[in-house]
Amino acid sequence: MQRTLIRETVRNVGNEVLIKAWIDVRRDHGKLIFLDLRDRSGIVQAVVIPQTSPEAYKVAQELRPEFVVEIIGKVNQRPEKNVNKDLETGTVEIEIKEIKILAKAEALPFDMGRADLSLELPTLLDHRGLTLRHPKIRAIFKVQAVIIDEFRQYLKSYDFVEFQAPSIAPAVAEGGAQVFEVSYFEHKAYLSQSPQLYKQIVMSAFERVFSVNKIFRAEPSVTTRHLTEVVSLDAEMAFIDSWEDVKDMAENVVRSILKRLEKECSKELKMFGVTIPKMIDKTPFMSLIEAQQKIFENSGRDVRNEKDLNPEDEREICEIVKKETGSDFIFIYGYPTKHKPFYVYPNPENPEFNEGMDLLCKGLEWLSGGRRINDFDQLMTHVKEWKMNPEKIKLFLEAFRYGVPPEGGFAFGAERMTMQILELQNIREASMFPRDMERIDERLSSTVKQKK
Amino acid sequence: MQRTLIRETVRNVGNEVLIKAWIDVRRDHGKLIFLDLRDRSGIVQAVVIPQTSPEAYKVAQELRPEFVVEIIGKVNQRPEKNVNKDLETGTVEIEIKEIKILAKAEALPFDMGRADLSLELPTLLDHRGLTLRHPKIRAIFKVQAVIIDEFRQYLKSYDFVEFQAPSIAPAVAEGGAQVFEVSYFEHKAYLSQSPQLYKQIVMSAFERVFSVNKIFRAEPSVTTRHLTEVVSLDAEMAFIDSWEDVKDMAENVVRSILKRLEKECSKELKMFGVTIPKMIDKTPFMSLIEAQQKIFENSGRDVRNEKDLNPEDEREICEIVKKETGSDFIFIYGYPTKHKPFYVYPNPENPEFNEGMDLLCKGLEWLSGGRRINDFDQLMTHVKEWKMNPEKIKLFLEAFRYGVPPEGGFAFGAERMTMQILELQNIREASMFPRDMERIDERLSSTVKQKK
Repeated sequence: MQRTLIRETVRNVGNEVLIKAWIDVRRDHGKLIFLDLRDRSGIVQAVVIPQTSPEAYKVAQELRPEFVVEIIGKVNQRPEKNVNKDLETGTVEIEIKEIKILAKAEALPFDMGRADLSLELPTLLDHRGLTLRHPKIRAIFKVQAVIIDEFRQYLKSYDFVEFQAPSIAPAVAEGGAQVFEVSYFEHKAYLSQSPQLYKQIVMSAFERVFSVNKIFRAEPSVTTRHLTEVVSLDAEMAFIDSWEDVKDMAENVVRSILKRLEKECSKELKMFGVTIPKMIDKTPFMSLIEAQQKIFENSGRDVRNEKDLNPEDEREICEIVKKETGSDFIFIYGYPTKHKPFYVYPNPENPEFNEGMDLLCKGLEWLSGGRRINDFDQLMTHVKEWKMNPEKIKLFLEAFRYGVPPEGGFAFGAERMTMQILELQNIREASMFPRDMERIDERLSSTVKQKK
Repeated sequence: MQRTLIRETVRNVGNEVLIKAWIDVRRDHGKLIFLDLRDRSGIVQAVVIPQTSPEAYKVAQELRPEFVVEIIGKVNQRPEKNVNKDLETGTVEIEIKEIKILAKAEALPFDMGRADLSLELPTLLDHRGLTLRHPKIRAIFKVQAVIIDEFRQYLKSYDFVEFQAPSIAPAVAEGGAQVFEVSYFEHKAYLSQSPQLYKQIVMSAFERVFSVNKIFRAEPSVTTRHLTEVVSLDAEMAFIDSWEDVKDMAENVVRSILKRLEKECSKELKMFGVTIPKMIDKTPFMSLIEAQQKIFENSGRDVRNEKDLNPEDEREICEIVKKETGSDFIFIYGYPTKHKPFYVYPNPENPEFNEGMDLLCKGLEWLSGGRRINDFDQLMTHVKEWKMNPEKIKLFLEAFRYGVPPEGGFAFGAERMTMQILELQNIREASMFPRDMERIDERLSSTVKQKK
């Protein structure tokens, strides 16, 4: 007998089916035992009637949540008044004939059978081996898988080639301090903070490239928005006419992700009580200076000489734009050249400001990118001005020595976007196995400290 | 004027087109200058005629390989006798009217304009910023991108969910010695050698999962088949009836990859003079003991008491199977339980041998996997017998404490498979930025050694 997935039961009314599943909830009503069965496709209610299936009833008495079972049963239509509208399979019930236990489970440390898994974050993570099974937790990672998949699908359809950016780096790509050091045989190496320079190299060969890869930041602080290991979604494209080509591609990628989430994850979005942010036909964009001016005009707060938007500015400019255009999204471009990485392209008409950009949504940064310098001489001038050691970025510089078209790209973090879309309180909820200063699976305080 | 990709020129005979490209080769015939233009879609020949386009001719005299240009020109059909059958665009030639230089290039350190880039491996890698542009090098990474993409596509179509396995690990998952140590704030951490235990945890929540992620091995030797950082393609599935379900899924994934390569990469395969290995309708499989017996019968070599096949055995058994069945592939299963990891499922009828398996092709291992132990008590018995520290795999063990169905999975390396399909001599050719004991981008001998 072939296995029937739980979501398929509604199409099998009147049939006998074989279901393989976990016990999600068991309710003993004395005379009857009700079981909520859970497999990858959904949850369905089943009932064991002692009179008609005495042996199955005997087994059912032994069952507890998370036991793994094979059951054979008949799919019955429920009477209209008993339909459970909260359940996709709420129109049917399985009348169990046989139960076979495939694996037993110990008594659970907490209740897993409710719609919300109301656990403190440390408990949630200390029990990741169990909590990942909860439908609302699985929903987070389904949304994340769709975000990542659509990023790839969309870019592939525009001739972008996937590449694998390295994780072990010879030196700090962007000169930052917060890097992890690796003992590499007799040498020192580092964990990559960004695939930026690699993606520009690969772009110089393939024109349009993307990668989904890990980046690592040794943030010495514990915040709700930082992890030490995150999944970075990176794209880079050659032969642009202006930075707006990059902006448009980034906008289209995000739009495509949002559309697919709406289509494929409506159930998951509903679980979190969220709706997809509004992206209008053409996302507005403005320079940093324009944004600061608007903030000044709106609230009188004068941030016109600041080199970036602070969180309050980000919230305010998003509110202004929402009011004016209906858009939850806004691109901000044109940051002070000196305060950004050496490879960002300065605006030729006003080189103090660059053609870097950020996409904000509802007060939060979703994505960063912009046009890069493609001319070798200009790049070398910046390398000197930024006091970079050209020896340490030799491979990168070589690409530009031999002809690179006008180009740009963008990047965003998978966990960050998952968190923002589902309005999670902490980015740790958007990572299956979050790493931070205090945790690698286990809390680090409980492990032996490194000898200095 | 919209850009026309080079592969589209053949559909634009008689039209004026805008092409954006690199100069692949420039041939000055005194009167005429011929340019091979290269973009992401292909190569096309163009000609500059001084009489009709004197300004373009002046610019063309300045061009060298890898200059980036925008050209406007007319697509002319070539006379039959001038058709270049080696080129997809060999039926046309672009008559250039205008040339604009987008970026200049220095004189190349070696010839990039031939079908083969005949460089020693160290030179090839020292100049990765340039050599990646060569069509035959790009072909390697197109093949690799298709392998990885098809792995995902196929598994997604069978309800497998993608997850992101962590790279930073708290302890050595499989107790091996060859791991890289990371300074993690005040603690020690390691780079993950395998997502094995994580994928089993995630499987216990999602039933069917896969991941494409980095694994790291501190191999203290330099061979043609090992890198310190590789891309591992991992899958795991619950509710199997036997290890053969895992074998069949692995076979179908590989079959699907081979089919797609044949369809989408025929040009690339041809560049390397290789054909796809033969996978017959049902790939043969035999136990290690049967394979050893066959080798004994075939050549008299007695390896019947060895705990594994050595490279010579692998070649011989593949030859025997090829002769007997026509298949280039063979599954070997049933290895001595004690010599394999603790989580591999012992054959219930003969527990000295397990239900682990390898897929061999033409004498080389392509993929490994098998059924895993799902019963918690059996797992704990193995943990003890294998002298594992249960505290170090707490998260993993927790998953099994609460009910896991019969399950199994498999894994293979993207670089290894790319190398084997294209019959490359060295796995470093199958990695854009290969890391080994002696190299992270630059050769490490030239960098400062770590102070002990």
